[in-house]
Amino acid sequence: MTTLQNDLLLRAARRESTERTPVWMMRQAGRYLPEYRAVRANTDFLTLCRTPELAAEVTIQPVDIVGVDAAIIFSDILVVPEAMGMELLVEEGKGGPRFPSPLRTAESIAALDTEGAVDRLRYVYDALSLTRSRLAGRVPLIGFAGAPWTLASYAVEGAGSKNFETIKTMMYDAPETLHALLEKLAQVVGRYLVEQTRAGADIVQIFDTWAGILTKDAFLEFSLPYIMRIVDHVKTNSDVPVIVFAKGANSALPELADCGADVLGLDWTVDIGEVRAAVGNHVALQGNLDPVALYSSPENIRNEVRRILEYFGNHPGHIFNLGHGILPTVPVPHAQAMIEAVKEISVELREKEQE
Amino acid sequence: MTTLQNDLLLRAARRESTERTPVWMMRQAGRYLPEYRAVRANTDFLTLCRTPELAAEVTIQPVDIVGVDAAIIFSDILVVPEAMGMELLVEEGKGGPRFPSPLRTAESIAALDTEGAVDRLRYVYDALSLTRSRLAGRVPLIGFAGAPWTLASYAVEGAGSKNFETIKTMMYDAPETLHALLEKLAQVVGRYLVEQTRAGADIVQIFDTWAGILTKDAFLEFSLPYIMRIVDHVKTNSDVPVIVFAKGANSALPELADCGADVLGLDWTVDIGEVRAAVGNHVALQGNLDPVALYSSPENIRNEVRRILEYFGNHPGHIFNLGHGILPTVPVPHAQAMIEAVKEISVELREKEQE
Repeated sequence: MTTLQNDLLLRAARRESTERTPVWMMRQAGRYLPEYRAVRANTDFLTLCRTPELAAEVTIQPVDIVGVDAAIIFSDILVVPEAMGMELLVEEGKGGPRFPSPLRTAESIAALDTEGAVDRLRYVYDALSLTRSRLAGRVPLIGFAGAPWTLASYAVEGAGSKNFETIKTMMYDAPETLHALLEKLAQVVGRYLVEQTRAGADIVQIFDTWAGILTKDAFLEFSLPYIMRIVDHVKTNSDVPVIVFAKGANSALPELADCGADVLGLDWTVDIGEVRAAVGNHVALQGNLDPVALYSSPENIRNEVRRILEYFGNHPGHIFNLGHGILPTVPVPHAQAMIEAVKEISVELREKEQE
Repeated sequence: MTTLQNDLLLRAARRESTERTPVWMMRQAGRYLPEYRAVRANTDFLTLCRTPELAAEVTIQPVDIVGVDAAIIFSDILVVPEAMGMELLVEEGKGGPRFPSPLRTAESIAALDTEGAVDRLRYVYDALSLTRSRLAGRVPLIGFAGAPWTLASYAVEGAGSKNFETIKTMMYDAPETLHALLEKLAQVVGRYLVEQTRAGADIVQIFDTWAGILTKDAFLEFSLPYIMRIVDHVKTNSDVPVIVFAKGANSALPELADCGADVLGLDWTVDIGEVRAAVGNHVALQGNLDPVALYSSPENIRNEVRRILEYFGNHPGHIFNLGHGILPTVPVPHAQAMIEAVKEISVELREKEQE
């Protein structure tokens, strides 16, 4: 085991006090970085995911270039349904990844392979091991997976969707079919995340990107129980902290705070100070700058960072992040301004407190 | 003044007890109705808005066909920026209305006409008067307008947007420019709604469709104060109830409950029972069935309706509605099933209470 030189993220995740607030950005290894685009110029998206050498390279880029306090393995949540047997297409300029043969029947769901899927994702574990070795303890390495609800949404709709009519109709009219799918996804995701920790992930995040399209009742029935099962499986089989980010599921924040995760990710629409006051003793919080704020001037970015740090206040358990992924056209100096502002202002606020 | 034969909506809006829960649907005069599509076959969208005879016809269609407890005047929120001098294009199959010359500078905002705008919208008042007369007191007539934030979003972006980068960058980097625009929009919208009440609107709704993309702070600075100014203007100059629907602004529900409106519209992501418990003594609540639930079977629609009615409970002040507009491909019998379920189950629950 390499000793981590910067373990701020892990300590904050466990709600231990830290000398400053750790910071990283969702999608930090991505298109806004010219160095990432240079790699992608010769390599399509899925090849990049499947080539540990290249995945490690782009994973580490933001650590070097923007100074984040963690690396998150370069991958995609949709490799899980792919590993379970679904054809996945990612074509440039064709509006996001898609499954050309979406799941619409109990039969197609029954045909999904849960046994071989976890092994078929070996390239992710290889990328994690290589990245971990290359990082040499500079910062922690984050593993991740999609939550069953979000993976099911893509798998049933076949792609992103405006209204998610197909999966919601399945939810209302054939709930047992959907539960069978969610059950299979939860099994695979739980084992997949544990394998990620064995390969070197110091912490893992579960992304429920489409949680916010559900009613609270539907979230509590079709998403949260499966997240909880995964969290429980990871906690039972590893000692890494778990972050759950259920974007937009804000009416279920009290229930999410009790889901067993160490850290709750917040989107930018909630006041992090209010959430901390409501649920902060259960879990650490991660967030929550509006990703679009990174288009404003570095001075205004700094103001927004300060506002969030002040709202959270001088308590243990804050990981600074955006409230969603960094957008591909954000200028790099703006991302750097955010990171720098978190590092400086969080120290300044701690010193102010001690005066 | 015609006496209303069915004033359930107005009584519920004032939190008076009603023998059953009133129900209507956002976008109820719309594409899901074959009778609407028949009118649109010969008439483009904006011509329909501007022709009182036709607007009255489609406004009344859902009263006859699906049995809603109110008519809402057929129009579009974007006619306001248009009346202030912006060219508005609504082209079939080209992805929603757009402003080909969006507002990007303080000069273009200064050039907006607030003086003539309210008069230029006379066709809306004419449509309201004609509809009111045709309705002959069957149900109340709802007038409406967009909230300044939402209108500004369209006017600055030029169209719907995924991330609203342009207006948010204006918000962060040139807040005084955005405030000048919001100020002008609030002036016009306030007077526009009062004119609607003079023309026959029994109640008005303010739609803040894009409230949910804002941080809570930004909503409290760039949206809510302008909504409050409009509510105040309408309450001072008329005696009609006001509904405010700020979609997705759920972290600001406590503040919205104190904005002066009689009714708060809720999207489908919140639990209406929890919201009622938190803010229900201030305001009536409107909502909040997931619009996508209308794709499920009539039996399951009925279950979802029952769930919402039970969550709200036997209290005064509930107007049943969808949590967003009805989708254009919903089968008419499914909309009818929802309306019928509200009417029947809300009576049944009141009777149960009395046993």
